[in-house]
Amino acid sequence: MLNEKSPKEIREAIRKGDYRGDTANLAPGRVQANLVILKKDLALEFLSFCTVNPTPCPVIEVTTPGDPVPRISAPDADIRTDLGHYRVFRHGKLVEECSDIKGYWNEDMVAFLIGCSYSFEWILRSAEIPLRHVEEDCTVPVYKTNIKLNQVGIFKGTMAVSMRPLTPKDAIRAIQITSRYPMVHGAPVHMGFPDQIGIDINKPDFGNMVTIKEGELPVFWGCGVTPQIVAMDSGVEFMITHSAGRMFLTDLYVKDFGI
Amino acid sequence: MLNEKSPKEIREAIRKGDYRGDTANLAPGRVQANLVILKKDLALEFLSFCTVNPTPCPVIEVTTPGDPVPRISAPDADIRTDLGHYRVFRHGKLVEECSDIKGYWNEDMVAFLIGCSYSFEWILRSAEIPLRHVEEDCTVPVYKTNIKLNQVGIFKGTMAVSMRPLTPKDAIRAIQITSRYPMVHGAPVHMGFPDQIGIDINKPDFGNMVTIKEGELPVFWGCGVTPQIVAMDSGVEFMITHSAGRMFLTDLYVKDFGI
Repeated sequence: MLNEKSPKEIREAIRKGDYRGDTANLAPGRVQANLVILKKDLALEFLSFCTVNPTPCPVIEVTTPGDPVPRISAPDADIRTDLGHYRVFRHGKLVEECSDIKGYWNEDMVAFLIGCSYSFEWILRSAEIPLRHVEEDCTVPVYKTNIKLNQVGIFKGTMAVSMRPLTPKDAIRAIQITSRYPMVHGAPVHMGFPDQIGIDINKPDFGNMVTIKEGELPVFWGCGVTPQIVAMDSGVEFMITHSAGRMFLTDLYVKDFGI
Repeated sequence: MLNEKSPKEIREAIRKGDYRGDTANLAPGRVQANLVILKKDLALEFLSFCTVNPTPCPVIEVTTPGDPVPRISAPDADIRTDLGHYRVFRHGKLVEECSDIKGYWNEDMVAFLIGCSYSFEWILRSAEIPLRHVEEDCTVPVYKTNIKLNQVGIFKGTMAVSMRPLTPKDAIRAIQITSRYPMVHGAPVHMGFPDQIGIDINKPDFGNMVTIKEGELPVFWGCGVTPQIVAMDSGVEFMITHSAGRMFLTDLYVKDFGI
């Protein structure tokens, strides 16, 4: 079973092309990360933007320009081959989807690993809080909200959020648990009233709609897709990202990020 | 202003009859307590009941039989005179309401001080979370729910809860904050769907109804009135309690109970 394997083994399976799917169910207890690759000349501005928007954009690691290895979070990984699916953007437009970006990589490239809420899902599940997108075997629904972000240079916009429908009791417990993990988005940013944050609950912008049962609250967490959307909307000349739900699996333990 | 006075000064004002009102707005940062007085022969069973139902019944102190002084939480207080209003029950029926219970006190009496959610309200307000019952100058609404309690001997029943309407953002923050104070009820037990816990939101059993604005969630915390109701319903031969919202002000600091 893939979900019993280590991050290293799963990265190898992905690199070989043996797995390309959603990573929600994999590498229990390890930090999963969103990927943004930009050219060096925008790196400082982008990192500053993430720094002042820590809820959706908690930065786990920034690679040295030209170095495809995340030396701290997965020293034997290669971010050019170890994600299941990539998206390449030029001037804010998607130009290619692929499973290997070696052809695009050069000395100018900087990779940003940004904490993903998939990282805390194992902790929620160990607290017996069921996750609908896991039950329904799809990708967590993600929405663009009207929650304004702090602007830095060309980077500005609104927050994207992931949504999990929970009973009130599970929502309370999930708030307690996730508050302890700010590096993977921490506590929810909203619950209960999608219209208050400018969302049509039935129309996720990424991922898949999941069933919200009678008596459940939709609970929204900051999402690491946010900085991708912001960079795309700002029309940056060149950017590579992961595809929704196909995260980078680090070797880091979520427990080491608990406060 | 009474709300700038120490617990000791406020207890003196109450003792003299200068104040008999709700204590929600008083003694910032101090622990406020519900009062239950029973005869010694039921004390162990009642305390055991509280012990296995810690969310609604966190016991702050139990007085020595016959001693009207809470030696730990307010060593110069007298629980027979220092609450604004008392209710006396015989066989589960209210027989008198008064502001001094010296005439009822004897060597057989044991007083239980049980944590009150008024204790964390100052912390919520210092986090700029507005409280509707304070804004509307009334007593927090309290409801009997269908949430079953653990039974011990004659003591059994369901949980009472206090309700505060909050925006989703404030509700998330309030859950984070109150989770740190289990001795004054800790995190909420429910939010959002009153019918799930058997409540008609417009009909509080104690206190006053407050306005719930569009886009607010009703958030419910375990309430220290619970053990009174349970003792009343079990028809105990003799019991004295405080009246809703007229709590006992201890000298203890809420911050010392933070986890």
